[in-house]
Amino acid sequence: MIRYLTAGESHGPGLTTIIEGIPAGLILDVNAITSDLRRRQLGYGRGARMRIAQDTALVTAGLWEGETIGSPISIFIQIRVWKKWKVQHRDKKVGPRPGHADLPAVLKYDFDDIQKAIERSSARETAARTAAGNVAKQYLAVFGINVYSHTRRIGAVLNETPVKFSASKFKEIEKSPVRCADKAIERAMIRAIDDAVAKSDTLGGVSEIIVTGAPVGLGSYAQWDRRCDTRLAAAIMGVQSVKGVEIGDGVRSAELPGSQVHDPIKYSSKRGYYQASNNSGGIAGGISTGEEIIIRAFFKPISTLGKPLKSTNLTSKKAVDAPYVRSDICIVPAGGVVCEAVVALAVADMMSEKFGGDSMREALENFHAFLKHVKKR
Amino acid sequence: MIRYLTAGESHGPGLTTIIEGIPAGLILDVNAITSDLRRRQLGYGRGARMRIAQDTALVTAGLWEGETIGSPISIFIQIRVWKKWKVQHRDKKVGPRPGHADLPAVLKYDFDDIQKAIERSSARETAARTAAGNVAKQYLAVFGINVYSHTRRIGAVLNETPVKFSASKFKEIEKSPVRCADKAIERAMIRAIDDAVAKSDTLGGVSEIIVTGAPVGLGSYAQWDRRCDTRLAAAIMGVQSVKGVEIGDGVRSAELPGSQVHDPIKYSSKRGYYQASNNSGGIAGGISTGEEIIIRAFFKPISTLGKPLKSTNLTSKKAVDAPYVRSDICIVPAGGVVCEAVVALAVADMMSEKFGGDSMREALENFHAFLKHVKKR
Amino acid sequence: MIRYLTAGESHGPGLTTIIEGIPAGLILDVNAITSDLRRRQLGYGRGARMRIAQDTALVTAGLWEGETIGSPISIFIQIRVWKKWKVQHRDKKVGPRPGHADLPAVLKYDFDDIQKAIERSSARETAARTAAGNVAKQYLAVFGINVYSHTRRIGAVLNETPVKFSASKFKEIEKSPVRCADKAIERAMIRAIDDAVAKSDTLGGVSEIIVTGAPVGLGSYAQWDRRCDTRLAAAIMGVQSVKGVEIGDGVRSAELPGSQVHDPIKYSSKRGYYQASNNSGGIAGGISTGEEIIIRAFFKPISTLGKPLKSTNLTSKKAVDAPYVRSDICIVPAGGVVCEAVVALAVADMMSEKFGGDSMREALENFHAFLKHVKKR
Amino acid sequence: MIRYLTAGESHGPGLTTIIEGIPAGLILDVNAITSDLRRRQLGYGRGARMRIAQDTALVTAGLWEGETIGSPISIFIQIRVWKKWKVQHRDKKVGPRPGHADLPAVLKYDFDDIQKAIERSSARETAARTAAGNVAKQYLAVFGINVYSHTRRIGAVLNETPVKFSASKFKEIEKSPVRCADKAIERAMIRAIDDAVAKSDTLGGVSEIIVTGAPVGLGSYAQWDRRCDTRLAAAIMGVQSVKGVEIGDGVRSAELPGSQVHDPIKYSSKRGYYQASNNSGGIAGGISTGEEIIIRAFFKPISTLGKPLKSTNLTSKKAVDAPYVRSDICIVPAGGVVCEAVVALAVADMMSEKFGGDSMREALENFHAFLKHVKKR
Repeated sequence: MIRYLTAGESHGPGLTTIIEGIPAGLILDVNAITSDLRRRQLGYGRGARMRIAQDTALVTAGLWEGETIGSPISIFIQIRVWKKWKVQHRDKKVGPRPGHADLPAVLKYDFDDIQKAIERSSARETAARTAAGNVAKQYLAVFGINVYSHTRRIGAVLNETPVKFSASKFKEIEKSPVRCADKAIERAMIRAIDDAVAKSDTLGGVSEIIVTGAPVGLGSYAQWDRRCDTRLAAAIMGVQSVKGVEIGDGVRSAELPGSQVHDPIKYSSKRGYYQASNNSGGIAGGISTGEEIIIRAFFKPISTLGKPLKSTNLTSKKAVDAPYVRSDICIVPAGGVVCEAVVALAVADMMSEKFGGDSMREALENFHAFLKHVKKR
Repeated sequence: MIRYLTAGESHGPGLTTIIEGIPAGLILDVNAITSDLRRRQLGYGRGARMRIAQDTALVTAGLWEGETIGSPISIFIQIRVWKKWKVQHRDKKVGPRPGHADLPAVLKYDFDDIQKAIERSSARETAARTAAGNVAKQYLAVFGINVYSHTRRIGAVLNETPVKFSASKFKEIEKSPVRCADKAIERAMIRAIDDAVAKSDTLGGVSEIIVTGAPVGLGSYAQWDRRCDTRLAAAIMGVQSVKGVEIGDGVRSAELPGSQVHDPIKYSSKRGYYQASNNSGGIAGGISTGEEIIIRAFFKPISTLGKPLKSTNLTSKKAVDAPYVRSDICIVPAGGVVCEAVVALAVADMMSEKFGGDSMREALENFHAFLKHVKKR
Repeated sequence: MIRYLTAGESHGPGLTTIIEGIPAGLILDVNAITSDLRRRQLGYGRGARMRIAQDTALVTAGLWEGETIGSPISIFIQIRVWKKWKVQHRDKKVGPRPGHADLPAVLKYDFDDIQKAIERSSARETAARTAAGNVAKQYLAVFGINVYSHTRRIGAVLNETPVKFSASKFKEIEKSPVRCADKAIERAMIRAIDDAVAKSDTLGGVSEIIVTGAPVGLGSYAQWDRRCDTRLAAAIMGVQSVKGVEIGDGVRSAELPGSQVHDPIKYSSKRGYYQASNNSGGIAGGISTGEEIIIRAFFKPISTLGKPLKSTNLTSKKAVDAPYVRSDICIVPAGGVVCEAVVALAVADMMSEKFGGDSMREALENFHAFLKHVKKR
Repeated sequence: MIRYLTAGESHGPGLTTIIEGIPAGLILDVNAITSDLRRRQLGYGRGARMRIAQDTALVTAGLWEGETIGSPISIFIQIRVWKKWKVQHRDKKVGPRPGHADLPAVLKYDFDDIQKAIERSSARETAARTAAGNVAKQYLAVFGINVYSHTRRIGAVLNETPVKFSASKFKEIEKSPVRCADKAIERAMIRAIDDAVAKSDTLGGVSEIIVTGAPVGLGSYAQWDRRCDTRLAAAIMGVQSVKGVEIGDGVRSAELPGSQVHDPIKYSSKRGYYQASNNSGGIAGGISTGEEIIIRAFFKPISTLGKPLKSTNLTSKKAVDAPYVRSDICIVPAGGVVCEAVVALAVADMMSEKFGGDSMREALENFHAFLKHVKKR
């Protein structure tokens, strides 16, 4: 079992995550964690805020001479604006922003100040998940499993072409300011963001997360909460701003006849069993099929708009414009990085469940023994 | 905490569920459980199979003179075809059906017979969840919370009109063979199913699940797995054939600018705070807003087609047609009933987490004290 | 992960358990489950009640032609006195018995009748855990792991001699009416029970549970709730009437100097590393050492005495004698059987965590690969 | 639900804990956390090591202007010896110490160096639990619940006299270098430690943890893992060096007849229902009775002795003396502080389960409403 918790507020001293269950003997590249933290801070459409303070991962537990030792791994990400902000911030906020946790949190937690809701509900927290997720990615990479993402949609602009990931394709996409795999569509996405800026509006979109190299047999239909799709949907829907999730062509498959949806099963002596197509997104009956796992996250547009939304003052009960906080216009490119992280954590948990192992050596041995047996079938 | 497990195979002696965490003092209507089991068996587009054996709930634990006593509730649903089937079934199945767990399960569990995969991966199991979910519904009803569903789409036919649920609207929709709220669209849905039958094809669709009466404050952004949307997405994606889930207008909101998506916050002395629209589907920042909770489940079309899909024989490794098992054409109307159940279980768990309470009296007292306090704010 | 839930009341239709996480391909002997149920009903010092109704396990889910298929296993144990009892029982009980859940449950659950507390808090429920535990035992046996118990103490009579278990030693002890390994002490135990009967009193005692064949490496110090000892202590203390638990010589070791407590580490080419003694009870630093795991459960005497305890009438608030319900005098021999079950469940969970595996073939392969590697060190 | 994780190694940069589920609106005294950390470092019989580096709690998340806001609370405890140690420590350790995790961890995690096992298995980690536990204590204190401990035994020296805790009694005991409530016995305990020092030996003992003010109704017999005693036993046995745990007079009650064990139930209009004695340690049938909860932890003597234990060199396989690491002689007084912490965490979790509540205001309202209702019964 691999599990994790995060802690930390937007304007607190820092973000912390503890991730537990990674076997001993994994050589962890701390720079790679920081690198994912930085990827999360980029993307065309982010506010200026993001650029001031670059996140850096500080591993405070779980490593011995650069290697995991079976202990929980703790990562701290300092929040650099903290001290400055403590002085500046004074007035209680009483104008809840639509689309945010502001109002429900004030009522749930009995707050007198919306800032108390903003602090933890903010997507700032996803840096901690990104850090934990990168640890999971490094664990998975040892098995040849990689988790990628690209931007499939920003607002009305859609890139429908399937993307075949590899290390070099990944590098290419990372160069795109919107993390789009198609140059022409990239330009259209950038234009859409520029338009939104001009209109003081915001945009959402769709990230596609692709897991390559995952073996057949992760997750199970045995119980609803063991299913591969249950766990991936929970992970993705748990990301701030995500309002929908599909596995493979899930949403569209609801409109099509069965004859156009289901993936034929083939066999070759070289590949073993495989599918002629992958509309199912690599999961059938709650179990990974051995094909690429494809998940799409639907992000709503950012809720903080330059063009103010209508709200109500919590003290006077009068109608007011929601306050404008300097913010992002579109976070979909960064959202994909967060989704990679939470998918990696879920897949790592399922790998650990299936293959056990307290050292990477043991886990790998179990993994290869299973693959070898499957190959013979 | 309310938790549950189910057990049982399609052609075993029966299905069992244990649901735990329901307070003492709930008068449980066992007929209502059976009634939901029957609703799950109906729907235009089901195979003849469904009609032979009507499910009946047998409560074997957790009740004392008709009332809960804080003990786990166990429900058994006998499988009537069991003994007959035991005699008939003999040959090992080696032709995996695309879109089913057949092949991944054979490889994962090292089966020599696909039937072993079919037994538990089959949607037959959802009867157990429907039973557990009905208990959760009865618990929620005491707080004035109701969980409804209707069919929003079958194949290409979509009912976009929002449905306002009430006890009478529910009864009306239940009369529809496709559980559609609009008579004209109902007819189009039926035609679509008839067409699919004619073409030996199958159809998926979309169920919309609506929770009325849920208070503000369920779930939390404090941790990813405590979020209201995380838990609902997991519950829904855990249902067989579901490949996508959205909260409110989640999928479409990815295409729209923020100014068209976010719901204005209003106040009236009578209603307290409320929203002028509900695109967010009753959840903001991982917390219920007090508006209706709206979730949509995207069902893929049934994987067992009269028009055979392409597969591979597991013994000979040769290409074969996937075997045709007498099956349903479209399960969306029934799928909605299952989704109601799993949503009810998730909401009940969040109610229990927020309000505690070992007796219904205590839980209700806590609930009303909170509502009263919220009203004053 | 292996997990389980139980349901059922003393005078309800039956007891149910669902146990989940057992790999596919385990040939399950249902008679062995019943056999453990019957062992739980025996023992010198039990009331006549136990002898009327012999428990029988009915597996209602999880088996296909006698073999597990990775599905949850459900077991039902019919309660034979149920229908008869329903007619007889009428008056509300208002005299809480000291030492029982009666009073705290009435206040917690807001009951008007103590019977509602008795139904689920009664040790009758342990039959369900015994059934689930027997499944775990059968799973463990495939790895050469066996879980035994014997009576170490009844009241003042103690058998301090260590017991070396084997299949034949087990059979021998099973013949003892108090499950004692020493004939002379057995007689003293029986006399002690007879004395207690004569005085209308009751007796507790100590069961020792021994796990043979468990490999080094179960559990972990990585987190408090992953420790081998944490999990075993929870399992044992969760058994009705248990008020204390020790690992190895835990209680006595608190009185001794370190030089007399800690077990020297030795090595031989045949056995690999081993200990010269086993005061630690097979666990060091939260991890199994590869030696026998030894746990002792301290049972308080039965709370229902012929010689009535002092109580208070819940209606009149007046002092009364606690009601006498025909009951057992000493349940320690049977308690040992229950402890075997819960220990087996905990050990099975740790085996599953360490070795993974969806089929017994895969789990065994992983297990043997680890042992082979350990041997080489 | 209140849950927590810890991370950190003995010679790493620091210890981290994340504790989650504390309601909003608790004014947290960070100095009180540090104060418990310091209490954990004291006690007659500790090595010089403990005195160099005093632990200090740094709250890095979960507070806003000194108050909880429903967010996870993260606490960091810097390890001051870290940098110095990194330079000094070089040689791989290959002589496993009996009684420690050394050997099982090397085999489990496939380590080449025992230091990797020592780092996380060491009791240094309990500082993190102490910090988390102090947060739980502060939460409980708002309900009038306090968690205390005192030393009941060191080696052969036992203090059998029951201790009645209050704020002033607590202060008095804290002045004792062995945390003993009796002056004469304190002197005997100190002499026992001095004797052990002289003999290069070590001593264990027994801590008694007492929870005052806990209401009736925590925990439940409904399922084994919901029981109050299950959860407390797991918490206590999860502490390093603990090898036994009893609730009330659990161990001794196994030797006594029922007539001498069970606590008579009384009633007075002022106190409501109460018990005339408390041999049961405040728990009956898995539920708190409303009396003091009394738990005893049995600590084995420290495994690192000046007088070396027999071991085996992992490289040469030859018999060697276990290495002597400068260490403590007796950690029982400090162990009691750790036990307070883990008991507080378990009780806080049960309080949260029973009373719910997202703000302290709400939780308190629910708590008082329950007490008021119980009073009327």
